[in-house]
Amino acid sequence: MTQDMKVIETLESEVRSYVRSFPTVFTKAKGYKMWDKAGKEYIDFFSGAGALNYGHNDPKMKEKLVEYIMSDGITHSLDMASTAKAEFLNTFNEVILKPRNLDYKIMFPGPTGTNTVESALKLARKVTGRTDIISFTNGFHGMTIGSLSVTGNAMKRKGAGIPLQNTVTMPYDNYVDDHDTLEYLERFLEDSGSGVDIPAAIIAETVQGEGGINAARFEWLKKLEQICKRWDILLIIDDVQAGVGRTGTFFSFEPAGLKPDIVCMSKSLSGYGIPFAITLIRPDLDIWTPGEHNGTFRGNNHAFVTATASLDYWKDDTFEKEIKEKSQIIYESLEKIVKNYPEIKGEVRGRGFMVGIASEVEGLSDKVAAKAFELGLIMETSGPKDEVFKLFPPLNIDEEGLKKGLAIIEESVKSLVKEPITN
Amino acid sequence: MTQDMKVIETLESEVRSYVRSFPTVFTKAKGYKMWDKAGKEYIDFFSGAGALNYGHNDPKMKEKLVEYIMSDGITHSLDMASTAKAEFLNTFNEVILKPRNLDYKIMFPGPTGTNTVESALKLARKVTGRTDIISFTNGFHGMTIGSLSVTGNAMKRKGAGIPLQNTVTMPYDNYVDDHDTLEYLERFLEDSGSGVDIPAAIIAETVQGEGGINAARFEWLKKLEQICKRWDILLIIDDVQAGVGRTGTFFSFEPAGLKPDIVCMSKSLSGYGIPFAITLIRPDLDIWTPGEHNGTFRGNNHAFVTATASLDYWKDDTFEKEIKEKSQIIYESLEKIVKNYPEIKGEVRGRGFMVGIASEVEGLSDKVAAKAFELGLIMETSGPKDEVFKLFPPLNIDEEGLKKGLAIIEESVKSLVKEPITN
Amino acid sequence: MTQDMKVIETLESEVRSYVRSFPTVFTKAKGYKMWDKAGKEYIDFFSGAGALNYGHNDPKMKEKLVEYIMSDGITHSLDMASTAKAEFLNTFNEVILKPRNLDYKIMFPGPTGTNTVESALKLARKVTGRTDIISFTNGFHGMTIGSLSVTGNAMKRKGAGIPLQNTVTMPYDNYVDDHDTLEYLERFLEDSGSGVDIPAAIIAETVQGEGGINAARFEWLKKLEQICKRWDILLIIDDVQAGVGRTGTFFSFEPAGLKPDIVCMSKSLSGYGIPFAITLIRPDLDIWTPGEHNGTFRGNNHAFVTATASLDYWKDDTFEKEIKEKSQIIYESLEKIVKNYPEIKGEVRGRGFMVGIASEVEGLSDKVAAKAFELGLIMETSGPKDEVFKLFPPLNIDEEGLKKGLAIIEESVKSLVKEPITN
Amino acid sequence: MTQDMKVIETLESEVRSYVRSFPTVFTKAKGYKMWDKAGKEYIDFFSGAGALNYGHNDPKMKEKLVEYIMSDGITHSLDMASTAKAEFLNTFNEVILKPRNLDYKIMFPGPTGTNTVESALKLARKVTGRTDIISFTNGFHGMTIGSLSVTGNAMKRKGAGIPLQNTVTMPYDNYVDDHDTLEYLERFLEDSGSGVDIPAAIIAETVQGEGGINAARFEWLKKLEQICKRWDILLIIDDVQAGVGRTGTFFSFEPAGLKPDIVCMSKSLSGYGIPFAITLIRPDLDIWTPGEHNGTFRGNNHAFVTATASLDYWKDDTFEKEIKEKSQIIYESLEKIVKNYPEIKGEVRGRGFMVGIASEVEGLSDKVAAKAFELGLIMETSGPKDEVFKLFPPLNIDEEGLKKGLAIIEESVKSLVKEPITN
Repeated sequence: MTQDMKVIETLESEVRSYVRSFPTVFTKAKGYKMWDKAGKEYIDFFSGAGALNYGHNDPKMKEKLVEYIMSDGITHSLDMASTAKAEFLNTFNEVILKPRNLDYKIMFPGPTGTNTVESALKLARKVTGRTDIISFTNGFHGMTIGSLSVTGNAMKRKGAGIPLQNTVTMPYDNYVDDHDTLEYLERFLEDSGSGVDIPAAIIAETVQGEGGINAARFEWLKKLEQICKRWDILLIIDDVQAGVGRTGTFFSFEPAGLKPDIVCMSKSLSGYGIPFAITLIRPDLDIWTPGEHNGTFRGNNHAFVTATASLDYWKDDTFEKEIKEKSQIIYESLEKIVKNYPEIKGEVRGRGFMVGIASEVEGLSDKVAAKAFELGLIMETSGPKDEVFKLFPPLNIDEEGLKKGLAIIEESVKSLVKEPITN
Repeated sequence: MTQDMKVIETLESEVRSYVRSFPTVFTKAKGYKMWDKAGKEYIDFFSGAGALNYGHNDPKMKEKLVEYIMSDGITHSLDMASTAKAEFLNTFNEVILKPRNLDYKIMFPGPTGTNTVESALKLARKVTGRTDIISFTNGFHGMTIGSLSVTGNAMKRKGAGIPLQNTVTMPYDNYVDDHDTLEYLERFLEDSGSGVDIPAAIIAETVQGEGGINAARFEWLKKLEQICKRWDILLIIDDVQAGVGRTGTFFSFEPAGLKPDIVCMSKSLSGYGIPFAITLIRPDLDIWTPGEHNGTFRGNNHAFVTATASLDYWKDDTFEKEIKEKSQIIYESLEKIVKNYPEIKGEVRGRGFMVGIASEVEGLSDKVAAKAFELGLIMETSGPKDEVFKLFPPLNIDEEGLKKGLAIIEESVKSLVKEPITN
Repeated sequence: MTQDMKVIETLESEVRSYVRSFPTVFTKAKGYKMWDKAGKEYIDFFSGAGALNYGHNDPKMKEKLVEYIMSDGITHSLDMASTAKAEFLNTFNEVILKPRNLDYKIMFPGPTGTNTVESALKLARKVTGRTDIISFTNGFHGMTIGSLSVTGNAMKRKGAGIPLQNTVTMPYDNYVDDHDTLEYLERFLEDSGSGVDIPAAIIAETVQGEGGINAARFEWLKKLEQICKRWDILLIIDDVQAGVGRTGTFFSFEPAGLKPDIVCMSKSLSGYGIPFAITLIRPDLDIWTPGEHNGTFRGNNHAFVTATASLDYWKDDTFEKEIKEKSQIIYESLEKIVKNYPEIKGEVRGRGFMVGIASEVEGLSDKVAAKAFELGLIMETSGPKDEVFKLFPPLNIDEEGLKKGLAIIEESVKSLVKEPITN
Repeated sequence: MTQDMKVIETLESEVRSYVRSFPTVFTKAKGYKMWDKAGKEYIDFFSGAGALNYGHNDPKMKEKLVEYIMSDGITHSLDMASTAKAEFLNTFNEVILKPRNLDYKIMFPGPTGTNTVESALKLARKVTGRTDIISFTNGFHGMTIGSLSVTGNAMKRKGAGIPLQNTVTMPYDNYVDDHDTLEYLERFLEDSGSGVDIPAAIIAETVQGEGGINAARFEWLKKLEQICKRWDILLIIDDVQAGVGRTGTFFSFEPAGLKPDIVCMSKSLSGYGIPFAITLIRPDLDIWTPGEHNGTFRGNNHAFVTATASLDYWKDDTFEKEIKEKSQIIYESLEKIVKNYPEIKGEVRGRGFMVGIASEVEGLSDKVAAKAFELGLIMETSGPKDEVFKLFPPLNIDEEGLKKGLAIIEESVKSLVKEPITN
């Protein structure tokens, strides 16, 4: 073990996890590549769990950031006004909101995903005067008590140490075979004897990343929005992981034609992997009292700078088209694997660059990811039983890198199938 | 109104607050100075609400940060191993923990104050199997549901939109005249009919910043620790605002001789105003399951780099001594104001560089802060009725800057006393 | 208005309800008949909402009760030992439990339905160490906070004034067309990402009285029990309303072949309409600490005496057979009404003597009940929209009375159909 | 062991408690005397924990009850109108409310103490739109979840199996030496940073029976009422145990000059030891929706009959005077015991016929009660550590019976002091 790894094992809390799957010390990164201390190169199909959609250390953003720092631009400003913030707001409005015909107020709730979710839940309760939130099976929304209450994973929920309250879980799309899960949901809403009160909001991901790469059908999402309207329930789309292009469009809900009441964004929003989050709010719902929600790092100007720079990717539709094309390569490759290796009992899941293979063979996905790491590819697993190996390549990866990574995955699967699979 | 300010007013949520007190657009900052777009210079006695204890854009940290970025060092690593993290861990251990004879495991809970508090509460509940947390009147611990449940402020609590549960509030030091508030607390604990169950933990600040610059006496803190030990309750010190030298020592609890079970740190920890937080855990309590608490930005390597650089300030006791000396200047100046302007019915409060004047004249403190801003000084108010104007100068401010700032405060008070004070 | 009615309207709280449906002052009752102050006779198809299954003032029970009172038998004994209690325990065991091959410990939780439910929920949580209870849509279990938390009705839930917690509602049998609702339930249990934690218990009625006379199929109930066993969840059957012969057997769950872990009984248990309740507990679950649940009136000896006397009805299977035969008359009569009056869009629901007609015509059921009252029959409505008129004749009613009552119902329906039905 | 006792031990749940302290089978009772199956006579200083203030089987009430039963009067009527109910309402109004200048609406919430408390809490929350209730240390209000949430006893609270919420416990009178506990309470109310929200109601007993015979001073109670008025908080007096003459007046709060917003009554209200409860409501607060709170046995006509008869005791002030005189005998006797037996470190507590001796000698009170039982006196202990032996003689006991009972107590103490006291 290296000295650095020893330091980490000695001093860092047992809660650390990814270092256990990827047991090496990283030093440098660029685009879709990472290098460890020994100089070994890795292809990154993990992308910081969706926080590095533009790869590592994008040169243009880097340039802007260094320039800003060198000029002694404001670093930390809470919610005072700064030029960097104004520029971000303006650019986000011009490049993202206006062209999509969206009209949101922008809230800076603190620079993490769970902060934006907590702010959304609070606002929904304040606006409606109701207490309950409906969330979905296998949803993941964060680890602070408010967000954790709408998160499905039993291990993570148990970590709260208290009963999680004021929430109701409903079945996500395709949760029960041959059942229209929204029919269930609406049955509960329309029946005043159901025990399920009309909630303040329904919170949903369009594709569940942590929950096992479950992609809801567009018609399901659209119907969900209609139900919300019918019962005067706010629709919150948590686009923390699926947003910023991950599923092929800036907002993951665009192709479904949704117009959520509140949108939660974080992860890749800063573009550069630095902490940042916003909550988008339908203007008439923006009834916050000043300071009613806050957070010390809500004015992270470094993030304003890189986020503004990152929006260059979205000035026209070139980037979207590239994602679309490359995602075809991914699908075909994964479908081929599933077909060629029936032993893994695999199923391709997902949308855009948010994809994976769910294997019914217990423990297999973990082994595939471990083997891939050995072969120089970083990739994680997800799902309630870690049954999915999950590909999150950077959106701007070139074809060469993509194919190289996919080849490693196939090789990993192959090597495991050749070895008898036992648990 | 400038174009930038217009953008902010149009696009940013109504929740924004400081921009209302300090209505100008900032562009640049260095040390204890800030400049707005019009080129006006301000002395900063606000320090990012305690996140900028070393002032803005400290040159040494800046150098290290830019160097790191230029070399394509890992920016975002979740809880994978990186050299920057290892270096931070090692330096924090050598410079801070070891010399203070402290032996903590270090957890990265996500890069904000509320994240470290949430992680502390979860761990305390998990370790003890109990659900309740005791917090104190006028305590402030954050805005996500778990942290908000241990926060006293009624307006902020109401923002939750749900009843806040699993917590009991006890009176902080000096809360009721002539009463020993810990006698009350312990009476509840020792009486099995009190309705107050033995809690998992007691969470406390040594000086309450948001709550009105209430400094608990050292003997009160020491007695609190003894009560915790007697009843097998974990003691969590939330040092997010009072820590990192703000009250005169790195940890605010050092002069009281405490050894808390869990310590929450954030704000000035990164040194540079970028998001960062850690939770310090007594090693035998570190029973987390891997991943049981997490957060996308828990591996913010920029923060690792600047935080490591910032610890240079603590390599010997020079910095502590300087803080001590300069805090004397502050106290004397404030005491003089209280004495010379009896009309403000003022009382000096606080410890070290975490001080203020509480005025019984309703609305006065807000006016002092507003006047000071006009005169080029940034300073906020706190307390349940905003009755305190609160000084948070950078710890490394020079005497000239300090005196200039104090002079502006006196001038502000003076101008308000001359004008008849009405509400 | 009579003087008595005026007293009630002046002094009794607005919460009173049945007096509004049956606006007369009752003085005397015997068997299935009641008389008001003016001497008008009524047929009682309400039976005290199921608390008078043996009719009013059964002569044998009356004799025993008066004899007991005259002899100065203990009236009130908390949970001290009394001969009357011992006799009840022994008789209940010999006449009810043993012949059904049931082996329960008997708890006296306080003399009302909600008390037995609260005791059951507490015990289930204590035994399992889990906090959640699963209940069903349109379930009704009582009006104190614990019982109300597992009750579906929105109006009643709202009366709590606080969010009702630690419960999850699942769909009852036939809740969604063509869906197997238990498949849905079990999907949530088997998926560790469902957000539904394994509960302490599932509480169910075999026929939902307040919820609209919904009778679960026996195979559904049996499957529910199997699910409970599979997941180590306690099964609580709330037999407060459906028990004591109402559906045809002493325990309503007998024909489904269930052996619940906990059974809640009250209402007709005393036989005479006086307050009484018991909780039946699988012996190995009886881990209460003495006094951990109690209630001043848990030792209501008058109830012990009449309950003991009432068990004479169950010494052989004669009574069961009679109920069966007479319930045939009821069904045929109701089916005829539904067939002959298609305008009411009616559906016959229920089991045994716990039956009704659900009408899709809004407001109709209330009108039928009102008309019937006019014609000398007492009958209530139920269901989330009061869409069911509900027949609860005494089990020991004679054929003459039964037919007379049924004729009044038909006449009421007829008169309403002739009048155009409008709302 | 007798056959009856064997039946109880075999079939009754482990939750039974008093039968363990008084291990004999009772058969008959009259006035202040009880007899067991072996014919042994006991003096009853327990009075059904306050449910038998008029002793057992009062002849006049018995006569009325039997007469009513024999005439086939309505037994069970839910909240339909009955002559027995109208008579009770009218008599209660004429004999109790009017002469005391009280103007309450009367609610029948279900026939137990916990039912009236639950209804009071629900109404207070509904009226105010607030969720919290403030209760006091060592308060006891019942065992269903709502009532248990405002009960102090840790063992009983733990029985809930879930965290008890929406309540805050404040210190009762004399809880901490030399502190004015209401000053503390009001400090929390007036400080918007206290973490204690303005509650819907404060619920209090004037003398805490279960909590250890703690009698609040009249001035404390009066000040509590003023605080409630000042902060627009409803005052609920739980007079379930202290009411109906137990402390010397019909309502325990009369001598303190209170006029509570809501009053909870049960226990001795029926006079005869049969289940009964009412909630008294300030008329303008009576905003219940019909049926928003209910309970099957809320129309217990046997109780209406005996309760009406019992009010004969209150037609003039004779009864009050007698209680006063006899309570002097009790006090003097207890004071003498405390003085003559300093070894017991005793303190006399209570008011009227609700009195006891608190002993600092651990375990002593239990031994005194056990010895007294041996000598033919029934008496229980109370307080968080069972440190009080508690005298609840019937209010209509004659001097002879009273003195005989007191003599047994002295003898019991004496015998224990002579034996060396060890644990």
